[in-house]
Amino acid sequence: MKKTLFILICLTASLLATAFANEPIKLQSPDKQLELSFELRDGVPYYALNRAGKPVVLPSKMGFILEWRDDLKDHFVLKETKYSTFDSTFDETWEPVWGEEAKIRNHYNELLVTLEQPVGSVASMDHSTETRATIMQVRFRLYDDGLGFRYEFPIPNALACFWFKEELTEFAMAGNHKAWWIPGDYDTQEYNYTESRLSEIPALWEASHEGGGWPWTPFSKTGVQTALQMKTDDGLYLNIHEAATVDFPTMHLDLIVDSLNPSSYTFRSWLCPDAAGYKGRLNTPCHTPWRTVMVCTSATEVLASRLILNLNEPCAIEDVSWIHPVKYMGVWWEMISDKNCWSYTNDFPSVQVGRTDYAKATPHGRHAANNDNVRRYIDFAAQHGFDALLIEGWNIGWEDWYGKQKECVFDFLTPYPDFDLPALNKYAHQKGIRLIMHHETSASTVNYERWMEKAYNLMNQYGYNAVKSGYVGTIIPYAEGHYSQPINNHYHYAITEAAKHRIMVNAHEAVRPTGLCRTWPNMIGNESAMGTEFRGRIKPGHTTILPFTRLQGGPMDYTPGIFETDMGKIVSWDQGNRMQHTICNQLGLYVTFYSPLQMAADFPEHYEPFMDAFQFIKDVAVDWDKSLYLEAEPGAYIVTARHPKLATLNKAAEGIGTLKDGKKGVISNATKFVYALPDDASIEDLWHTEPHDVWYVGGITDENAREVTVKLDFLKPGVTYEATIYADADNADGIPGESYNPQAYTITRQKVTAKSKLKIKMARCGGFAVSLRSL
Amino acid sequence: MKKTLFILICLTASLLATAFANEPIKLQSPDKQLELSFELRDGVPYYALNRAGKPVVLPSKMGFILEWRDDLKDHFVLKETKYSTFDSTFDETWEPVWGEEAKIRNHYNELLVTLEQPVGSVASMDHSTETRATIMQVRFRLYDDGLGFRYEFPIPNALACFWFKEELTEFAMAGNHKAWWIPGDYDTQEYNYTESRLSEIPALWEASHEGGGWPWTPFSKTGVQTALQMKTDDGLYLNIHEAATVDFPTMHLDLIVDSLNPSSYTFRSWLCPDAAGYKGRLNTPCHTPWRTVMVCTSATEVLASRLILNLNEPCAIEDVSWIHPVKYMGVWWEMISDKNCWSYTNDFPSVQVGRTDYAKATPHGRHAANNDNVRRYIDFAAQHGFDALLIEGWNIGWEDWYGKQKECVFDFLTPYPDFDLPALNKYAHQKGIRLIMHHETSASTVNYERWMEKAYNLMNQYGYNAVKSGYVGTIIPYAEGHYSQPINNHYHYAITEAAKHRIMVNAHEAVRPTGLCRTWPNMIGNESAMGTEFRGRIKPGHTTILPFTRLQGGPMDYTPGIFETDMGKIVSWDQGNRMQHTICNQLGLYVTFYSPLQMAADFPEHYEPFMDAFQFIKDVAVDWDKSLYLEAEPGAYIVTARHPKLATLNKAAEGIGTLKDGKKGVISNATKFVYALPDDASIEDLWHTEPHDVWYVGGITDENAREVTVKLDFLKPGVTYEATIYADADNADGIPGESYNPQAYTITRQKVTAKSKLKIKMARCGGFAVSLRSL
Repeated sequence: MKKTLFILICLTASLLATAFANEPIKLQSPDKQLELSFELRDGVPYYALNRAGKPVVLPSKMGFILEWRDDLKDHFVLKETKYSTFDSTFDETWEPVWGEEAKIRNHYNELLVTLEQPVGSVASMDHSTETRATIMQVRFRLYDDGLGFRYEFPIPNALACFWFKEELTEFAMAGNHKAWWIPGDYDTQEYNYTESRLSEIPALWEASHEGGGWPWTPFSKTGVQTALQMKTDDGLYLNIHEAATVDFPTMHLDLIVDSLNPSSYTFRSWLCPDAAGYKGRLNTPCHTPWRTVMVCTSATEVLASRLILNLNEPCAIEDVSWIHPVKYMGVWWEMISDKNCWSYTNDFPSVQVGRTDYAKATPHGRHAANNDNVRRYIDFAAQHGFDALLIEGWNIGWEDWYGKQKECVFDFLTPYPDFDLPALNKYAHQKGIRLIMHHETSASTVNYERWMEKAYNLMNQYGYNAVKSGYVGTIIPYAEGHYSQPINNHYHYAITEAAKHRIMVNAHEAVRPTGLCRTWPNMIGNESAMGTEFRGRIKPGHTTILPFTRLQGGPMDYTPGIFETDMGKIVSWDQGNRMQHTICNQLGLYVTFYSPLQMAADFPEHYEPFMDAFQFIKDVAVDWDKSLYLEAEPGAYIVTARHPKLATLNKAAEGIGTLKDGKKGVISNATKFVYALPDDASIEDLWHTEPHDVWYVGGITDENAREVTVKLDFLKPGVTYEATIYADADNADGIPGESYNPQAYTITRQKVTAKSKLKIKMARCGGFAVSLRSL
Repeated sequence: MKKTLFILICLTASLLATAFANEPIKLQSPDKQLELSFELRDGVPYYALNRAGKPVVLPSKMGFILEWRDDLKDHFVLKETKYSTFDSTFDETWEPVWGEEAKIRNHYNELLVTLEQPVGSVASMDHSTETRATIMQVRFRLYDDGLGFRYEFPIPNALACFWFKEELTEFAMAGNHKAWWIPGDYDTQEYNYTESRLSEIPALWEASHEGGGWPWTPFSKTGVQTALQMKTDDGLYLNIHEAATVDFPTMHLDLIVDSLNPSSYTFRSWLCPDAAGYKGRLNTPCHTPWRTVMVCTSATEVLASRLILNLNEPCAIEDVSWIHPVKYMGVWWEMISDKNCWSYTNDFPSVQVGRTDYAKATPHGRHAANNDNVRRYIDFAAQHGFDALLIEGWNIGWEDWYGKQKECVFDFLTPYPDFDLPALNKYAHQKGIRLIMHHETSASTVNYERWMEKAYNLMNQYGYNAVKSGYVGTIIPYAEGHYSQPINNHYHYAITEAAKHRIMVNAHEAVRPTGLCRTWPNMIGNESAMGTEFRGRIKPGHTTILPFTRLQGGPMDYTPGIFETDMGKIVSWDQGNRMQHTICNQLGLYVTFYSPLQMAADFPEHYEPFMDAFQFIKDVAVDWDKSLYLEAEPGAYIVTARHPKLATLNKAAEGIGTLKDGKKGVISNATKFVYALPDDASIEDLWHTEPHDVWYVGGITDENAREVTVKLDFLKPGVTYEATIYADADNADGIPGESYNPQAYTITRQKVTAKSKLKIKMARCGGFAVSLRSL
């Protein structure tokens, strides 16, 4: 990863506090459209944000309530104002290890405000004879597309170790905006979104839980989660989130209902407490995560924003050669659909890992992760150019894993008797497939950390380079939530320890990401939202909202690609559970839904009748040098075009080659990466000249059918491309009912140029996909 | 370790439940003095215990309150009664790795009662259509000196995973006994004992906290801790405790104050809850720890009882050759007394391990664990035949470690700049001294577990074979207590992981032991009571109570040997803090207070004026093949005689020898173990013929001076011994005041035989010690 640092010059403008005590301090975005102002009113810090002179965030309070000592909310005086400047601008371009584009510009103006509670103005925790002032700084970074600010606590400082009881940061919205929100919760983000005016949040809050995940732990009947996407009546797209949440609890937002001022729409930060009720424990020198307010003039700008990534620290991993985007299949949907099980036997109502003897157990015959079935998936995945295969239910303990808050459920080491771990890895590697390890922790971070080193070592021993981890259930340590500071620390620990083992991590049920994948690109995915596994409970339009919300923090392992949408065809008890999407909607997701980790989640036998449509999943890339957000509206539709980062191979078949050193190498058709057998080789060792220029376009829609016109003006001028268009058939319909017809599609080919436009119809809950290849 | 299993034959006496439904089931101790009876009254289980026909425990309820399902307290029917018998007796003799005697007899009669809640009699958690009965068994083991019983939950069973809200086990005392107790607490056992009638507990409970430890978390104003020592008006010594507490919370006792029945003295089990409020989470098959009621006819019988050890499982470590008793000194009292510090600098009010740069720090000059000082201790310890030296404050983080509930305080790896870990170990090993590692966890089990493997590896790398761990402060995970099931699991995890590294553990502030050192003899010590560090706050007689209470579960690292009792002589601010003991009291402790880990805790310079008295500490052994409890009364005095387990070397000087393989070996003068340099060698490789028979006798008293007569009839008949008697001088006095004179002693020698008696006077808070050596 190279960084191009254009400028980083800081000038200090130390100004007498008195000079500014009564007038706001200002900061403008590079394009001068956004203006941040900061002021102290009677010692209380306030910030506000305008765009083009109109308020976006009205003057909003800042600060914290502390335990044991006086709060960080008032009695402040302004000590210093500092701009980092080269014409007040920081401007660099950096290259992510993987992403939606090859280069990302990080361009902002910065202001650092130093506030002080003078000695004696407040009480201190440690010493009644404290002689140091209490110092709190606020660092503002203003981008063209939004604001980030964080609190910093430098040393020397009267603050050393301090605990938050509440964060007071407010976000006073300037109007009763439309919002797409999920209810605030300490344990799950697995909710459908509710679209409403801000004023309607209290009335709709109860209903917003319908169909959601478990366990759920709401905290306030006006609480919502971030990223919170809003739209003003003026057509601005606002988004409140946070960036770089490390050693800190997750921020939710609570709408302050003020009966005296019913037309105020102010959110206040609501941090997830730890088991003892504290909302953050800090030690100076330190800072909070960034609180962010994105301000865009169109929906597509939101999708193009890199605000969250930019506010994170640069990559902390020196050698990133082992980090690869992955297209994969899984022995997984069989369990989700209840066709088969994670478990192996019915013999054990109670399992004690290390004591329960599976050698003597009678198999119940529905264990999906058995040798034969895994080989079947390996064969299919290899035949169709996938990189990897996830296998869940490979390890003992699943008979008694769920909802019991057992400290130790799994050891992450011991396979079931019918899962031959060494042999299956060998078989997979021979076919160019890596197996993806699965570590379901049953939310016992205590137990997972005890086994983690051994588990990662096992992975290294057999050549696993990626793990899907899971945190299903009530967190252990007891009384912690999924998003408290200690548990956020656990997720981070798991990532950083994995990096030492050169392991990529895809954590499910963990905290929703805040851009940390910039710093730790081995965090290749996360779930942290309602994914495909919710099946018929997913509302139309869900996947048109997630890129505005959940995906702002990092990629999601949404597990798309479900071609057989009628669950009742898989298991008789699930009659009537039909998913609200068409096959072309699923194809569209591979482009509209950015992830370096993309799954084809359905059974091989569900793809086999539709191999012509499946071809798009085989073809589409998972890493990009350019992404164009052509049209979008949250909750309605998205049309995206992307250009693969790496040259695409000429034909799918050429999967095997010879590396420079004479070793045999496997070339991933899906990701175009090269894997040596048995050792990894540098990508550069074997790369093919690319004769074709390739683009992929995808579109999805909500419950409304619609026609879109895709202008192909992003293609190379003067070059003719062949477009392969996967579109909903005229009679396709993704909404269960009499006309439900999710598997009807057409595949057409036509020659196009940069001057061409494609008119494409999407059915209700439908979508489309287009492959473009230069001739 | 050899075991002699005389008999283990079980006969099943399956009896029709109806036959016993209305009459108690009986079990007698091998000597037929104790009789246990069990019965169901209207489906509620009761047990009772008599001695010689008189009640010791009146009929007492048993059972549990469960979460989510009907309780295990009534609706029971008796399904089966099973005696394990050879004439109903189990009788084996086993050899502890270390202990008070070389062989321990485990001799009991056993009864297993199987109770059932029939299908439909109660509701089940998992399935309304549950077809299995709920089964709870109670296993009783009756010894001549007491009762142990535990609950067992076999499979198949309607119970699979279940949570306790309360344990209902009662201990209905038959009278208003005298008791020695400390207040119930989830976080500390560091209390002085209160001596009172049971009826006085409520009134004295508040005062019982005076001078105790921190943090303290009481739960009931009638709660007390175990082991609870009592004495009846008939002269029986009763003791309630528990044995083999694994994967279970610690049991406290709550005195039920029944205004309708003021003369009832019933305790009920009060388990330490986890952070979510549950008091135990079990998965079948499983069992609780043993609940124990010791019944002795004299105080010395209590000291001789092996009830708790016997109820634990046999040694789980195959090769125990690396486990050695240890006599040690420490760079420790300097910090306790505040002469010097654990910390290194005043530069850092806040420390962040991994970020804070100590290389640039200015030393404050009071760091005790510096190279020069450590070498001084090594020299002294080596010169006087000690095995080991503990050094606290060697690792970074102490500037900011205490009371802040920081998740990560220490990394257990990084020494202070002035502590040269490799060089000091090399220096120590050359002199036959092992350094004892120190791991203060600041009660963050989360952080300790993250570093544990690396920390143990560091110890292995440099030849540490023992660690003192500490759990000072509020437990992390937050809202857990020191004695909850998850935290008890942590202590156990630390022990078992240490065993893999051949590391002995001495855990301070951990849960008070319950005999687990039988199973894990690398658990060489524990604190878990008020130790020497409390200095002037320790009440007279404290050490005469601990062998009846705290030591019943396993040895304590009491850290005796404080010769300079006036703290004001060390630091001026501590004027008036004078410890209540004489030098001879301290000498007596090395015999009355059993521990395989004995410290000479004071400074070298405090021993130097008293080297003639210090000679006893040098001479006394720390492992025994025979222990005789000559006289004792809790809270008053103890006189004990012990015979070393291993032959004593002829002269202290012969510390260096040559092993069979030609390597140089160090012979510990204190423990008589042989250490090869650099590798351990078998003890058997180099053992000297022992020309002398040796005994040690020790005595201690409370605030009352007293004269004892020690009959030497335990000596070999017809053999003459030289007795060296260390006794309080006539004007010695251990109680601060005008006559305070703690350092006055006499050392006399005389020839004695088995027919001799020694009359020895002990001053107030005094004691004595005698070395006996055959001529």
